[in-house]
Amino acid sequence: MDLAQIGATQKGGVCRLALTELDGRGRDLFVQWAREAGCSVRVDAIGNIFARRAGRDNDLPPVMTGSHIDTQPTGGKFDGNYGVLAGLEVVRSLNEAGIETEAPLEVVVWTNEEGSRFVPVMMGSGVFVGAFTLEHALAQRDAQGVSVGEALAAIGYGGAESPALPVGAYFEAHIEQGPVLEANDRVIGVVLGALGQRWYDVEVQGMEAHAGPTPMALRRDALLAASELVAEVNSIALERAPHARATVGSLEVFPNSRNVIPGRVRMSVDLRAADGAMLLDMDAALRLACERVSLARGLTIGVQEVVYFSPQLFAPKLVDGIRSTAAELGYSAMDVISGAGHDAVYLARLAPTAMVFVPCADGISHNEIEDARPEHLEAGCNVLLLAMLRSAGVTA
Amino acid sequence: MDLAQIGATQKGGVCRLALTELDGRGRDLFVQWAREAGCSVRVDAIGNIFARRAGRDNDLPPVMTGSHIDTQPTGGKFDGNYGVLAGLEVVRSLNEAGIETEAPLEVVVWTNEEGSRFVPVMMGSGVFVGAFTLEHALAQRDAQGVSVGEALAAIGYGGAESPALPVGAYFEAHIEQGPVLEANDRVIGVVLGALGQRWYDVEVQGMEAHAGPTPMALRRDALLAASELVAEVNSIALERAPHARATVGSLEVFPNSRNVIPGRVRMSVDLRAADGAMLLDMDAALRLACERVSLARGLTIGVQEVVYFSPQLFAPKLVDGIRSTAAELGYSAMDVISGAGHDAVYLARLAPTAMVFVPCADGISHNEIEDARPEHLEAGCNVLLLAMLRSAGVTA
Repeated sequence: MDLAQIGATQKGGVCRLALTELDGRGRDLFVQWAREAGCSVRVDAIGNIFARRAGRDNDLPPVMTGSHIDTQPTGGKFDGNYGVLAGLEVVRSLNEAGIETEAPLEVVVWTNEEGSRFVPVMMGSGVFVGAFTLEHALAQRDAQGVSVGEALAAIGYGGAESPALPVGAYFEAHIEQGPVLEANDRVIGVVLGALGQRWYDVEVQGMEAHAGPTPMALRRDALLAASELVAEVNSIALERAPHARATVGSLEVFPNSRNVIPGRVRMSVDLRAADGAMLLDMDAALRLACERVSLARGLTIGVQEVVYFSPQLFAPKLVDGIRSTAAELGYSAMDVISGAGHDAVYLARLAPTAMVFVPCADGISHNEIEDARPEHLEAGCNVLLLAMLRSAGVTA
Repeated sequence: MDLAQIGATQKGGVCRLALTELDGRGRDLFVQWAREAGCSVRVDAIGNIFARRAGRDNDLPPVMTGSHIDTQPTGGKFDGNYGVLAGLEVVRSLNEAGIETEAPLEVVVWTNEEGSRFVPVMMGSGVFVGAFTLEHALAQRDAQGVSVGEALAAIGYGGAESPALPVGAYFEAHIEQGPVLEANDRVIGVVLGALGQRWYDVEVQGMEAHAGPTPMALRRDALLAASELVAEVNSIALERAPHARATVGSLEVFPNSRNVIPGRVRMSVDLRAADGAMLLDMDAALRLACERVSLARGLTIGVQEVVYFSPQLFAPKLVDGIRSTAAELGYSAMDVISGAGHDAVYLARLAPTAMVFVPCADGISHNEIEDARPEHLEAGCNVLLLAMLRSAGVTA
């Protein structure tokens, strides 16, 4: 709630875009809290913050947890922030209980997970695991032309370049951002992995014409064709229940005038599935649907893939640990698959990784009314703590 | 081609919005030409320009023709302008041939037919026939806050208020703005009347949610529902072929983000039909479709009618005259119904009215590439001249 004051919006949400002055103040607060909890703090060249609680054997690779504190323009208090503060809570609880771990622990704030101001999304964790280069990330610019490198320097979070260090294990606690836990009345989501994602730009090119004098039979209406595609995209996921998702989130009509038959439509398509073969199959179904509609309507449809994330399973041993920990603590739990991307999805390329989900009200996220219940947030922290202890090893 | 220089665009079109300085220059050129052709010129309080060629009996109500010279932002050379210049050509031809008419002739430039800068559309003819008041029209403002009254004064075309005078007959020559004449290889369109129009704002309210974590079964996707409506709207016209039209020209998605399930869609619906009963029936079909989709998808759909023009038949005697004149002159002709609104549709409320259509290239209008063939434009002028002579009476 203190962190949520920085960038607080009137509707109870948070607007704290990556690498803004507000993000800088949020980071400062985290660093202050981490130091007060006895951690040493290191910042890398893309601005990721690593707060380290020393272990008994500091040559062991650290057991990490973390998430992000940048938000969407109309974001909530919990997305990302919960994972960072849950990590801090683990450190404080261990301090209070006087527990030392074998391996050191690190709580990480990853830079620019949301991608609202700078793309690519999940920038800090992406650079950390080598999904793209530091140079590429630093050179990206926002809508005002400010580069990531400039924005980092402006808030004082451009750290030293450093070799990627081995990671013993990575955990991330997060609100579910979906309605499944709530609909099933469960407190803990045991995250098996994350859906793969394929994102497309689709452009339908028809023939602009005056809506009055042009008979129905002589039209090539780009919006009518696009509407058929929206329905087809929906079917692609319905036919592959329960884990497939397909969404047209963005659609723009040209010239978008009341009495002009649309000549052109630009739309996005977002396909997600739990395994790569299904995602490949969905890609083929999309292209077939575009071909079918374009033939039937006598217009052209261009399909361009713009983003690909392969499905990512988390480490079975760690996932089992989350599941059994939830049971030990008496929390109702269920296996889920993350539909969204998270820094953990990148970390899983580098180290054994697992996530803990807790419910959020009505499944709403990326929204100022995003909310979560304190007892659920506490449950997630407790599971996270025991899972991290198990990985880091406890000194008797 | 000279008039089209004023506001000429790079792509060969014209941008001469109503009551701009460019519109003023276009009006000045028309007034100059009309005076050179021996006409007296009068401007009324809404800026309509009446160029009068005296007849033998100037107490007879004038036989009028005209159209508009304002254009769409990306308009062409012919829409409106052709009708005005065809009227001027009639006057010049009669002058050259030394023909005097019984009744006076008037060539009219109607103010703001397009409605691109100020609404309502067909403003000048609307005021002339009393569809709405002069005060209402003068008070309308453009996006910059300039009123019609101010804009008229700025270009010097705010004339004196004057009582509506009786009109003997009204003719308007116009490019078809659709593909029917060209598709049927005809030179003259004998316009029986104009389709009635009902325009709506439709708003679909669903539930915004993250595209990844939200299973298909738990979604209330406003764009999916809107897409079904687009298809239903199209069917409403297809089931009432050949004269019904139904178009969704404008559609906006909120928040319109690639990975967010659309929570809200705002769209327009434009329904047109040749008779009032069918238009009423189409209105009912639209409301039923909205209800069906909203029930099936568990979301709300609001429908608000924003514009209504009743279908308007033209004067059978004048229409017959156009048809027989085209036949006498050896032009291929066909009966058509105007799908678009025209100043003639308002004038038909006040006086016997008819229109003459000529083909435009590929049926394209409201577009900078709008084009028409000189021999077709000449044919339209010839039909207009003989039709006007018949109404005005020729002195032996």
